[in-house]
Amino acid sequence: MDTGSSSTADHLRAALDGPWGDVREEARKQLAGDEFAGDPHLDYKAARARVLEQMRTISTMGIAERGFRRENGGTGEPGAAVTGLEMLAYADLSLWVKAGVQWGLFGGAVENLGTERHREYIERLISLDLLGCFAMTESGHGSDVANIETTATYDPATDEFVIHSPTPSARKDYIGGAAEHARMAAVFAQLVTDGENKGVHCLLVPIRDEQGADLPGVTTYDDGLKGGLPGVDNGRIVFDQVRVPRENLLNRYADVAPDGSYTSDIENPSRRFFTTLGTLVRGRVSVGGAAAAGARVALSIAVRYALARRQFSDPDTGEETLLMDYRSHQRRLFPLIARSFALAFAQNDLVRRMHLVQTGQNLDPEAQRSLEKRAAGLKVAQTRHATRAIQECREACGGAGYLTENRLVTLKADTDVFTTFEGDNVVLTQLVAKELLTSYADEVRDLDALGWVRFAATMAGDVVRKRSGVRQMIQTMRDRNDESVDEGDLSRRSVQLQLFADREDYLVRTAAHRLRARAKETGPFEAFNNAQDHILAAGTAHIDRLVLEAFIDGLADIEDDDARHLAEAVCDLFVYSLVEEHSAWFIMHRFMSVERAKAVRRGVNELVDRLRPDALTLVEAMGVPESMLRAAMLDDASVYDRR
Amino acid sequence: MDTGSSSTADHLRAALDGPWGDVREEARKQLAGDEFAGDPHLDYKAARARVLEQMRTISTMGIAERGFRRENGGTGEPGAAVTGLEMLAYADLSLWVKAGVQWGLFGGAVENLGTERHREYIERLISLDLLGCFAMTESGHGSDVANIETTATYDPATDEFVIHSPTPSARKDYIGGAAEHARMAAVFAQLVTDGENKGVHCLLVPIRDEQGADLPGVTTYDDGLKGGLPGVDNGRIVFDQVRVPRENLLNRYADVAPDGSYTSDIENPSRRFFTTLGTLVRGRVSVGGAAAAGARVALSIAVRYALARRQFSDPDTGEETLLMDYRSHQRRLFPLIARSFALAFAQNDLVRRMHLVQTGQNLDPEAQRSLEKRAAGLKVAQTRHATRAIQECREACGGAGYLTENRLVTLKADTDVFTTFEGDNVVLTQLVAKELLTSYADEVRDLDALGWVRFAATMAGDVVRKRSGVRQMIQTMRDRNDESVDEGDLSRRSVQLQLFADREDYLVRTAAHRLRARAKETGPFEAFNNAQDHILAAGTAHIDRLVLEAFIDGLADIEDDDARHLAEAVCDLFVYSLVEEHSAWFIMHRFMSVERAKAVRRGVNELVDRLRPDALTLVEAMGVPESMLRAAMLDDASVYDRR
Repeated sequence: MDTGSSSTADHLRAALDGPWGDVREEARKQLAGDEFAGDPHLDYKAARARVLEQMRTISTMGIAERGFRRENGGTGEPGAAVTGLEMLAYADLSLWVKAGVQWGLFGGAVENLGTERHREYIERLISLDLLGCFAMTESGHGSDVANIETTATYDPATDEFVIHSPTPSARKDYIGGAAEHARMAAVFAQLVTDGENKGVHCLLVPIRDEQGADLPGVTTYDDGLKGGLPGVDNGRIVFDQVRVPRENLLNRYADVAPDGSYTSDIENPSRRFFTTLGTLVRGRVSVGGAAAAGARVALSIAVRYALARRQFSDPDTGEETLLMDYRSHQRRLFPLIARSFALAFAQNDLVRRMHLVQTGQNLDPEAQRSLEKRAAGLKVAQTRHATRAIQECREACGGAGYLTENRLVTLKADTDVFTTFEGDNVVLTQLVAKELLTSYADEVRDLDALGWVRFAATMAGDVVRKRSGVRQMIQTMRDRNDESVDEGDLSRRSVQLQLFADREDYLVRTAAHRLRARAKETGPFEAFNNAQDHILAAGTAHIDRLVLEAFIDGLADIEDDDARHLAEAVCDLFVYSLVEEHSAWFIMHRFMSVERAKAVRRGVNELVDRLRPDALTLVEAMGVPESMLRAAMLDDASVYDRR
Repeated sequence: MDTGSSSTADHLRAALDGPWGDVREEARKQLAGDEFAGDPHLDYKAARARVLEQMRTISTMGIAERGFRRENGGTGEPGAAVTGLEMLAYADLSLWVKAGVQWGLFGGAVENLGTERHREYIERLISLDLLGCFAMTESGHGSDVANIETTATYDPATDEFVIHSPTPSARKDYIGGAAEHARMAAVFAQLVTDGENKGVHCLLVPIRDEQGADLPGVTTYDDGLKGGLPGVDNGRIVFDQVRVPRENLLNRYADVAPDGSYTSDIENPSRRFFTTLGTLVRGRVSVGGAAAAGARVALSIAVRYALARRQFSDPDTGEETLLMDYRSHQRRLFPLIARSFALAFAQNDLVRRMHLVQTGQNLDPEAQRSLEKRAAGLKVAQTRHATRAIQECREACGGAGYLTENRLVTLKADTDVFTTFEGDNVVLTQLVAKELLTSYADEVRDLDALGWVRFAATMAGDVVRKRSGVRQMIQTMRDRNDESVDEGDLSRRSVQLQLFADREDYLVRTAAHRLRARAKETGPFEAFNNAQDHILAAGTAHIDRLVLEAFIDGLADIEDDDARHLAEAVCDLFVYSLVEEHSAWFIMHRFMSVERAKAVRRGVNELVDRLRPDALTLVEAMGVPESMLRAAMLDDASVYDRR
């Protein structure tokens, strides 16, 4: 019991490491040193300086190059890039964010929205010769990017764009790098030429000189202290008629000629906007991955503590009881471990899909769009999970959990904003649900609620049953397992998947009906708003189903029998605990009898009993090396383990 | 709509302010200045110094005296003391904790466990001439106080106690004041005399000299950075054979004579232990109150922001929509406001009960015990609420919510440990449930699981129906409202209360049955542990019922019709959202039909619609003055309110 370091753990870790397992293994060695860990005793100015130093070390490791195409000086391995950077999250989330801003967001904008004329910047940004920031969000508009207020007005007299913040709410805000380090910003602004607004475009705008002073017309501010992420210098930028050459427009999808005439291969402005944003999908993929990594660190710490810490005597034996042996503690932590497993498989699957699309190996025109929806959904699932899991871990470690030296509070503080940045979770869940309701119809993809609700009211309900290969998957599993139709056996994967798919279908269909019915009575916004909780539930159900599918796919790839059997139990717990959480819904909508719901609750208890002896194996499988846990209490056996 | 500052808000505020409303009003004026606010830019050393300075100012205000009896130099107003100190939480939670440690915990130990011979200390600790700390928790034992390891061994040769930390896990830990400021500690230790362990007692032990250096045999350590509460100097204390005079034993309930003979008026050691701990109930009462105060500050900020911040256009009007007008946002915040109202009434009721017991106006021998159970339960409910509400508020304010200047992250970080200190919430919920199961039987009150399960197995089930006046209350309400028996109308208070009481009764009764059945098969610990989730649910249901009763009582005292009608809707939302949360349970146990559960969900939506126009009135009623909100974004209308 709890011997750990078993070959079962190794097999499971290999499975959870996914397609870029070698990248993870390499990173575990490269990043284990003290020089990459966060130092919570530094004030935020010093923390920023330290992270910048860490960045300089990392920039020599060949990690950043993976994210860029060969013609741009990279190695063209997006999957390896996201995976490798994710490992920084084990060391320090400030470092991960800083790297993500520089190479992912700023670098990604130049790489994906720019053309040859911007190529010169990429080598410089990889090597950190050029430090950049990604200036999209404004104080007045974050989720609603289409309505940001910064303008980029073309002046044919000088062949320049004039960047300007016309209102107080137009200031760029929360921008990582804007407070201190960035010399250049990828600025999103309304492009105006010939007196006409062409919508949101991105331009490169120098903001500081070599000495770090604001350039003329640019005023930067420091966002100062935040809930966490002290090593990231978030700030504000206000532009007062700042001029940049016309060539600074990142012109992959649209360009302005010297005479001010505007051209674009994408005629529909809404589609152009979403194509622009869509190239930035890697950010959302990465945020979800890093949040889940943070949750794995926290769970690794909390479980190991619960395997050492004792409290109250067992009267049957006289020995003090390990926290991990309490039912309530098992119910706190094991379902979160199960969800971490599920999300790890889902993330690996997502990164693989992203890699295939971004390396041109998947040319299906639907693939990019499907990738965006999946990335949005998994960003929600993983960041929500991280918030919940890390909170639970802190509480499960009591007073020790509150000491910074035991790291949980830092993980909590650093990841807290992950539910917000790269897309607020409520807005993203809604986005996922809208896609479901409109069945990927391009013409309603803009965020205008009016057009969308009108479309949904006519289309949805007819199309909902068409999408996704889930029915095929269920059938395949039934065939494979030679299952007779035992609809009642929730331990069968096909039954589990059917239940998840039924919930999703029902919620999508009924949300569509409700929208249609209400839209006639009230205005479309009112109709939409009235059904918002229903729509969000549909989005969540979809995400849950995707995650389960990924878990099931992942199970099939585990060759070692012991490891697979253990993972099967973990998958069952993921399903049972999620069904338990939603049991009111399942009963109320007649997908589950009261008796079965009670059986599910008992099932959760049985599963946590079943998994108890493998607690250490499970956290070892999650793949956070002990050297990277950095929780003082785990090194202090004499104090906590009195057995 | 949203005009605010209405007389309705004033009436509601008066109701929520409770019996010591004048104390709250006075504190709102006294504490509004910058000098009492936290300064998040200070490092923790400076933050501690600042809080100590604030304490010195407060010690001149007459606030601390209220907590002590007249014969000890106080004014003998425990209700006013707890209420007045709670208001410090609006200013800064570090300050509140520091005051609570000095006057509540340390002062409370001397006042309640000491006798005349310790009176000299009280005047000095009120004035801060003597700074103290409360050294109960050890690294190895927090929840299980009965098994702490520090020893106080009487040496008749010198008429002294020898205080000692025999093991690494015996070190005192997380002790507020131990790192820097405290000169004396109220140390809980196993009292040994004549070679016999007499159980846990409390002694006063000087730990530092006037210059702040550790006294001989005492070694203090700094717990360093924590998740929050930077102004509190938590630390560790290790004792190496430290000698104190015999008279330093706080000897109200037990004493040791010069010859080493031990005497106590309370013969049963277990009852003596619980009597000792019971006198400290004010700590739990206070923690719950301060946590709820923190939640009110956060909700006041988040709601005001949602009434200014807009995002996405309403296509029906072209105007950007206020966050507060989104259904999802209403569902996020209004149920939390409703719970804050409920808990405010419950806290006022608790403080009033405490006041009556502690001033000798309530001499019912059951009152102290009932008070302890209620304080434990409300500590759980309020701290859990704070954790959840403040998290939700942070997320509801997006990126702005993550900036320290908007205060929500500080509230989150500072309150996070409230679910742990003064009793871990899981352990306290269990304590409440055990009391229910054993129906207050003194003889099983010790924490020994063996005896307890044996008792529960024979007694529970028979006694569960006897306790509490809830049935009387329901009947009274039925009579008052001239209700015919319409069991189905959940808008009736009697039906609501019946539903809550039914849930509690059922859970307690079935937990008892389950224990009885299992105890025969397995050992008692195994039986208990197997049913732990069930037992915890019973405790939670009890707490929910108490809170609802307090809300209903509070409603009856609101004389203004508009105010009362509004509060009635808030109470409905409290009930509906709580029933919605537990709807799976209600359906599964046949207390509610599927149709009614669906109606409850619709009811929540209708109630948030109903309350939307009164959002500002509701937060004004919560009584956090605008001057104490200290969220920069609320002062920055040009950026966020673009109407």
